[in-house]
Amino acid sequence: MRRILWLTAGLLQAQVDIAGINTWRQTHEREILREYIPLLEIPNRAPDLANIRRNAGYVLAMLTRRGVASQLLEIDGVPPVVYGEIPTPGAKRTLIFYAHYDGQPVDPKEWTSPPWKAVLRNPQGQEVSADTAQLDPEMRVYARSASDDKAPIMALMASLDAMKSLGIAHKANIKFFFEGEEEAGSLHLEQFVQKYKHLLAGDVWLICDGPVHQNRAPSLYFGVRGVTTLDVTVYGPKRELHSGHYGNWAPNPAMMLSRLLATMTDGEGKVLVAGFYDDTTPMTAAERKALLAVPGVDEALKEELGLVNTDGNNARLVERLMLPSLNIRGLESAGTGANARNVVPAKAVASLDLRLVKGNDHRRQAEKVKAHIRQQGYYVIAQDPTDEERRKYSKIAKVTSREGYNAVRTSMDLPIAREVIQTLKRTYPDLVLVPGLGGSVPLWVFEKELRTPLIGVPIVNHDNNQHSANENLRLANLWQGIVTLTTLLAMP
Amino acid sequence: MRRILWLTAGLLQAQVDIAGINTWRQTHEREILREYIPLLEIPNRAPDLANIRRNAGYVLAMLTRRGVASQLLEIDGVPPVVYGEIPTPGAKRTLIFYAHYDGQPVDPKEWTSPPWKAVLRNPQGQEVSADTAQLDPEMRVYARSASDDKAPIMALMASLDAMKSLGIAHKANIKFFFEGEEEAGSLHLEQFVQKYKHLLAGDVWLICDGPVHQNRAPSLYFGVRGVTTLDVTVYGPKRELHSGHYGNWAPNPAMMLSRLLATMTDGEGKVLVAGFYDDTTPMTAAERKALLAVPGVDEALKEELGLVNTDGNNARLVERLMLPSLNIRGLESAGTGANARNVVPAKAVASLDLRLVKGNDHRRQAEKVKAHIRQQGYYVIAQDPTDEERRKYSKIAKVTSREGYNAVRTSMDLPIAREVIQTLKRTYPDLVLVPGLGGSVPLWVFEKELRTPLIGVPIVNHDNNQHSANENLRLANLWQGIVTLTTLLAMP
Repeated sequence: MRRILWLTAGLLQAQVDIAGINTWRQTHEREILREYIPLLEIPNRAPDLANIRRNAGYVLAMLTRRGVASQLLEIDGVPPVVYGEIPTPGAKRTLIFYAHYDGQPVDPKEWTSPPWKAVLRNPQGQEVSADTAQLDPEMRVYARSASDDKAPIMALMASLDAMKSLGIAHKANIKFFFEGEEEAGSLHLEQFVQKYKHLLAGDVWLICDGPVHQNRAPSLYFGVRGVTTLDVTVYGPKRELHSGHYGNWAPNPAMMLSRLLATMTDGEGKVLVAGFYDDTTPMTAAERKALLAVPGVDEALKEELGLVNTDGNNARLVERLMLPSLNIRGLESAGTGANARNVVPAKAVASLDLRLVKGNDHRRQAEKVKAHIRQQGYYVIAQDPTDEERRKYSKIAKVTSREGYNAVRTSMDLPIAREVIQTLKRTYPDLVLVPGLGGSVPLWVFEKELRTPLIGVPIVNHDNNQHSANENLRLANLWQGIVTLTTLLAMP
Repeated sequence: MRRILWLTAGLLQAQVDIAGINTWRQTHEREILREYIPLLEIPNRAPDLANIRRNAGYVLAMLTRRGVASQLLEIDGVPPVVYGEIPTPGAKRTLIFYAHYDGQPVDPKEWTSPPWKAVLRNPQGQEVSADTAQLDPEMRVYARSASDDKAPIMALMASLDAMKSLGIAHKANIKFFFEGEEEAGSLHLEQFVQKYKHLLAGDVWLICDGPVHQNRAPSLYFGVRGVTTLDVTVYGPKRELHSGHYGNWAPNPAMMLSRLLATMTDGEGKVLVAGFYDDTTPMTAAERKALLAVPGVDEALKEELGLVNTDGNNARLVERLMLPSLNIRGLESAGTGANARNVVPAKAVASLDLRLVKGNDHRRQAEKVKAHIRQQGYYVIAQDPTDEERRKYSKIAKVTSREGYNAVRTSMDLPIAREVIQTLKRTYPDLVLVPGLGGSVPLWVFEKELRTPLIGVPIVNHDNNQHSANENLRLANLWQGIVTLTTLLAMP
């Protein structure tokens, strides 16, 4: 019964004018880039509050210039949320579009051009002028957050312009919620949602973050993983020692850390930490079915990334993402290469990130890793050891964890989920449905505080170097994103 | 018979006037520091040829100002050797004093004061003025190479001044050989010795490098370890990947490297690389005896360094130094701490240093480690992998080794060795005799090319942070070094 009603609603709904949107976009490409580039050139690390506020101001102006009733949602000393509303008289539904304007840290020496200078490059990698070059959809804009996650903000604004120009009316109430500390762990998102709950009622959160499927087809995702991070420091001698005079007498913390990390997986990506997979919620039948239907990209990806084998005995990527993970995201001890010195290092540090799926709890997962470190004979503390502790314990690990958050998964069988799927399938018959995205977005807050379903609407290219040096946005993805988001903005 | 002759020679030799030297030094302390500080303030990394030549010029001027016939020994594009001679009519012996004026790399952000600004600090760590403060032997001068190895150059110059002032005559011919690329591996030392062989005839090389024993007593050493270094890079995906979207699917090179390094030792400093200890020459009876007589410092050192246990089941430090070692001197993969990003790194690097004892060959030792890496399933190459190699091998390690050099050990039973021991024992009854120093100095070249015995004459404090940040020289060691070196400069 419900299924029939839903199909009928789908058939009755008018399709938006895709060709019209594309034509409009073609004549406005340069204008879009001219608005986008200055946004990309404002440094956007969440802890850099002065610049973060400049970003927020720019995004706010983008909204107000389009007549959207907008404001900054504020908590003292925290990157503000940029919030906007388009009320639609007679609307039966409210759609909330989420994106974030802050970005990951950068290591400028690894970048070809400075991270906060937006540079347009042709497919051959040559820099071209955004003002004068003939634009090609295979060109890319390079800058921190070009993809993650300023791109959807720009695409939404261009969609509003296209709708106005083409006379496409809103049928639902629209809200925008642009966060400013997602890459710093969304530490205050819960507080924002609690404080501004009165503004945030809605029928669905459309989470505009993350990349489309690796086959470049438009995608929707129905879950994201949670995440927590751990920094593990192990200690050798109190100060670096000359490796000739003390090597293989003084315990080497880089070797201790290597041996400790080596116990954490089987070398094939299977985590050996006790109970690591125990509380994972099994997939539903619908999720299994969707997973099987996701186009295979593993072989192409392996070729692109120069990999012969992948973890878990070459299990499919989409399957691996339905499990919690333990990843070494960084290692450091003394110096290497030109900075190498002949020393026994005083300490060695590993940064780990744990991704969580439905059923896992971020604090519990971090505790499992700490228990594992204890099992390896380490005395685990949260700060550098005192002299007293050094006298007592030969193996000491400082383990600090940043507050993390849990995964969420929206049922693909919910009416709103089915309707969003159907709306986009009319535009894109090759739409890819992903039960769970590998990346993390702090959607659990919306689920917990607002009990509103969430659906992911990614638009950027998968090969965008997200979180790394030379992050970029493929113009074709920005152009397609405008079509995708216009389609959703025009939903009833 | 030989023993009786040697004792007789010892008794006949006049002792130098220790009290006189100390009195002279007390009235010249500030003057010595005023000459030393500008030398410490010239950056002295061997690859920085412009500054290296400024160092060489300064040292040359120190010699010529004292009437020593001096010159720069040159090989094109290489830090010069500063060479000087004091011929003594009727001398039966030539003593050659070795030191080096170049220093280890620096990481300025780890230093309390800039590495090439000489700062004097009192025992409480407060900066004091070298021009006006009341000097205290427990004060220290902080700068790169304050100890390693500009200190002996300054002490030798002060010794020459003291001898002149006190009327202590040279009895032997004296030569000075101050190298400029020791910390860069003495890559051209062999060439220098071959090119300038005609200048370098002598009866003994007195190697003024390395620290005195940890009990602060004056020391001699009769061997040094050789060294070679290996940089090991293992590869994950061609580019850093988002750890949410690809973690525990894409092989993690930081985990691969940790697992590889973990196979190299037993976690207690015993190296598990096949054949690692096989070609080590056993100690002689005299060396074993000397080793047992070396004052124990392990417990005090452990307390100072915050260590409960040391490698090899708490075996004595001096014993550990008679074995070859494998030390991780640095680890790096992506970023940690504030620079951590949620990525699967593209590669991970470990810098290793291998110390060698008598019998080991540096190329052979490096080959053993490479063979071990191959045994762990790695395809070992000397440059980054090509796409073709990536397609073929799932585990690839780039292993690059800097040219190293072998260990040397001088017999403590040689007549010249006995005479040097006896000469210093008259000044210092508590003289420590170390069969083998842990550190490396490229003495093998002198042994191989000149067949001249070598004896180590260290003067600096063991706790000088050699090779690390905040390198320093304890003034008491500089003052004692002047006595030590005057004693030897006055030897027959």
